[in-house]
Amino acid sequence: MKIIIAPDSFKGSLTAVQAASAINRGILKAFPEAETVQLPIGDGGEGTMETLVAATGGKIRRVEVTGPLNQPAEAAYGILGDGKTCVVEMASASGLHLVPENGLSPLKATTYGTGELIRHALDDGFTNFIVGLGGSATNDGGAGMLQALGLNILDSEGDEIGFGGGALSDVSRIDTGSLDARISESTFIIASDVQNPLIGPDGASHVFGPQKGADLEQVELLDRNLVHWADRILEATGIRLHDLAGAGAAGGIGGAFQAFFPVTVKRGVDVVLDYIQLDQKLAGTDLVITGEGQVDRQTAFGKTPLGVAQRAGSQNVPTIILAGSVGEGAGVLHKHGVVSIHSIVNGPMTLAEAFERAEELLESSAEQVVRAYFYQNTHIKGRLEV
Amino acid sequence: MKIIIAPDSFKGSLTAVQAASAINRGILKAFPEAETVQLPIGDGGEGTMETLVAATGGKIRRVEVTGPLNQPAEAAYGILGDGKTCVVEMASASGLHLVPENGLSPLKATTYGTGELIRHALDDGFTNFIVGLGGSATNDGGAGMLQALGLNILDSEGDEIGFGGGALSDVSRIDTGSLDARISESTFIIASDVQNPLIGPDGASHVFGPQKGADLEQVELLDRNLVHWADRILEATGIRLHDLAGAGAAGGIGGAFQAFFPVTVKRGVDVVLDYIQLDQKLAGTDLVITGEGQVDRQTAFGKTPLGVAQRAGSQNVPTIILAGSVGEGAGVLHKHGVVSIHSIVNGPMTLAEAFERAEELLESSAEQVVRAYFYQNTHIKGRLEV
Repeated sequence: MKIIIAPDSFKGSLTAVQAASAINRGILKAFPEAETVQLPIGDGGEGTMETLVAATGGKIRRVEVTGPLNQPAEAAYGILGDGKTCVVEMASASGLHLVPENGLSPLKATTYGTGELIRHALDDGFTNFIVGLGGSATNDGGAGMLQALGLNILDSEGDEIGFGGGALSDVSRIDTGSLDARISESTFIIASDVQNPLIGPDGASHVFGPQKGADLEQVELLDRNLVHWADRILEATGIRLHDLAGAGAAGGIGGAFQAFFPVTVKRGVDVVLDYIQLDQKLAGTDLVITGEGQVDRQTAFGKTPLGVAQRAGSQNVPTIILAGSVGEGAGVLHKHGVVSIHSIVNGPMTLAEAFERAEELLESSAEQVVRAYFYQNTHIKGRLEV
Repeated sequence: MKIIIAPDSFKGSLTAVQAASAINRGILKAFPEAETVQLPIGDGGEGTMETLVAATGGKIRRVEVTGPLNQPAEAAYGILGDGKTCVVEMASASGLHLVPENGLSPLKATTYGTGELIRHALDDGFTNFIVGLGGSATNDGGAGMLQALGLNILDSEGDEIGFGGGALSDVSRIDTGSLDARISESTFIIASDVQNPLIGPDGASHVFGPQKGADLEQVELLDRNLVHWADRILEATGIRLHDLAGAGAAGGIGGAFQAFFPVTVKRGVDVVLDYIQLDQKLAGTDLVITGEGQVDRQTAFGKTPLGVAQRAGSQNVPTIILAGSVGEGAGVLHKHGVVSIHSIVNGPMTLAEAFERAEELLESSAEQVVRAYFYQNTHIKGRLEV
């Protein structure tokens, strides 16, 4: 009996590593002879870096960078257990959490710090990158990041343009030869769940601008500036970002990666699942157990349990989901290889109690669920006389 | 795939009939082709009469009787769907709920009403009785019940003794020939989970007297009176109740039944399971699902899920338990044929919300659990190539 344990974190209570370990204990209580493989994961969104670092026994490196509002900020990148792969979350250097709520300013906010973070890693000799997009405070089309990596983005006077989405209208010429040469010699896997184009009504400014503090007038301005930016990139590189899917991710930084970096773009959860080599590990597996804090209809859009179930299902390995809370419409997951979905909560209780007891509840629900699932295997001889 | 659905009620939210129906819907959602048998049950304690009546499509007959404090009271007995079996709960006529909390009076309280209830049923022509003990307000050794059924229990003057445990010291002679002759021509199955003897430190007065309002002095008096009562019964019938197991049930009425009635005494849940013929119905069954509101270490002492699991287990049919709340120590049930135990609650919520949503929660947890349990059966061809 081989069981892969591949949960996300249970937000507010357990890290993915803790969750995997609790599930593991529950399984072994039921079946001490079971072969278990713990693969704690994330969905490629915020927190993925920490999860991958913890899961692979890697480490975290903290560096001083330029924050989104041109203030000093501490950011970090992860070095995975293989010692070769570097994980950068752009939110670490250019995220919303670095801006006070009343200081949101998409016209000014820059991705310069994200570029510095990558430069630090390049200086440390890394050439394999996983970059997580999302959670950004910026709408600068990635211009700041490119500048930090040497790219000259010049105005009509031949001077470097300023920071932020408001300054993109100044771009006159992009000197592609100035970009850090180590970039083209590296590999970048971009983790992004956003399929939006760079500009237009479904573009970065219209869809994500408001949550970064842009009012209607600013949204229009930001969108026009991104058109101008995309036009200049087209002139400089021949690459048309305007309506490219994913170019609108994280204030347009998705587009900058696609125009100037050797990238492979994947759904966040797939980046993680590829890195941990889930497909290879599925061989000979009888059951996959995944889970996260809340599972519902939303989970069917690219989140961890769905990603895991799809990979497992493609090899005919069934998946069971354990969740703190099972919400409306979770049943759609049955169409994607999910055998069953169970809450870990064992009776009426408050959210605070569920958080506090999460480890014990997860362990014991895992025990009960695998008992039910494997009962007929373990008793199959007596019952079916095979 | 044949599944027997045999839940108790979920106290505070669902009757056993509603619970069985919700579980049935969940199973059929997962496996529309499943053969299901709904056997809603009770543990033989209070509420069993209503459950058996509802489960068998029987009816309830209401009659006026003498309450425990010699006041008029409305009681009821059940006629099961077979039209022949009559279910009497002694609590209906002589129960604690008929006495105001400040009116508890075990020296006075009488089981006369229980005797009247049986007499009514005899008058209606019934000869098969199931009698549920428990919940009584009395400590009269069943003397009142026997008087209502004609037995002359006389004092030294040759007069009938008065009501209540306090009057038992007056008993001088019992005229056994005076008891209603129809009793010896009937069958009585007594449902009782109490194994206490009639008298002594483990007897009716010491163990159950205090909860019926007796102080220490009264407990001693009641116990002495039961000794006197048992001595007189021994003289009259040759039957020694003093240390007979179960004679102390319901204020000693258990002893009265054993001395004067043709009885079979069974654990409450076994009475119910025998009546619904669970053993016979288990043939060819793949899984039994039972459940109740709260499952914990206590459940291992004679309650519904344990009784069901033991019967199923003796025929190698596995049992799964669904419960509103799964408490400390429920795992001991695994030793009694229980595959797994699952809470129906699908996330943090208040008790009130769990009660209100119980039907929907039970349906959906039943669906998920049978999906997990039967997954390998339904996919067994592809996976095991049998």
